[in-house]
Amino acid sequence: MISFEAGRGALGTGAMRVTTISAVRTTVLVCITCRASTDPADAPRKGPQLARATQQALGEAADVDVLRVRCLGNCSRGLSAALCREKAWTYVFGHLDPDNDGPALIAGARLFAESVDGLLPWRNRPEPLKRGLIARVPPLGFPGEPPDSPETP
Amino acid sequence: MISFEAGRGALGTGAMRVTTISAVRTTVLVCITCRASTDPADAPRKGPQLARATQQALGEAADVDVLRVRCLGNCSRGLSAALCREKAWTYVFGHLDPDNDGPALIAGARLFAESVDGLLPWRNRPEPLKRGLIARVPPLGFPGEPPDSPETP
Repeated sequence: MISFEAGRGALGTGAMRVTTISAVRTTVLVCITCRASTDPADAPRKGPQLARATQQALGEAADVDVLRVRCLGNCSRGLSAALCREKAWTYVFGHLDPDNDGPALIAGARLFAESVDGLLPWRNRPEPLKRGLIARVPPLGFPGEPPDSPETP
Repeated sequence: MISFEAGRGALGTGAMRVTTISAVRTTVLVCITCRASTDPADAPRKGPQLARATQQALGEAADVDVLRVRCLGNCSRGLSAALCREKAWTYVFGHLDPDNDGPALIAGARLFAESVDGLLPWRNRPEPLKRGLIARVPPLGFPGEPPDSPETP
């Protein structure tokens, strides 16, 4: 995608900035073995329902891959899904709602596709992907923090 | 590493299978912003202590990369670490003990390095990496389960 936008901030008011933003393909992985953490152990698994809802939220669009996975290992915090992208962090989410959170996963995947630093932005991140964060992992090639770096920035 | 093993399963009893197994480089990512989930919010962060213990468990060996990361997002289930490998699943662990679990992370990384299917084996997996599993995510290129596949194998 090529985007032309009026310059702001560091470029000063009125400067024109031409930015090439490549929307990178993102993947939503939905765990189909998940039960909701509030459901009894013999209740039907709702993971496939979340997978269908996510696919429906994508509709006819083809900019996001929605894949079913057996299993994300986040079993006691289900329902679960992950967002993945090449050269970016991977995000795992839990406590998702099969009736309501399919659109949030697609919106999150599209936000992630536009990220320039490989992180899923907090701003504009759908609420279920804020409160449901389980873990995030940097991409292969991540250099690590140096030994003398502080624990927090 | 080259391994010769007697064929089993699909190859039939007695068939001889010659397999070339390359031990693939693995990475342990240790979260340095983590506090133990049982520690008060103003207690010193023990993530760096786990990172040092993991590095010490590696010692002079150089077959595993131990990297510090700020932060794995698994904050309420710390201490946290992840195991990563190219073309393999990524594993996130929580509730780790800074005094005892560094060697388990190195042993897990070495077990993972020998995996032929990209999964961290359950057998011989160190106990802290069994009970502390938080999530696992398949590698990029994972094709997904087909829509009509059952929820469990």
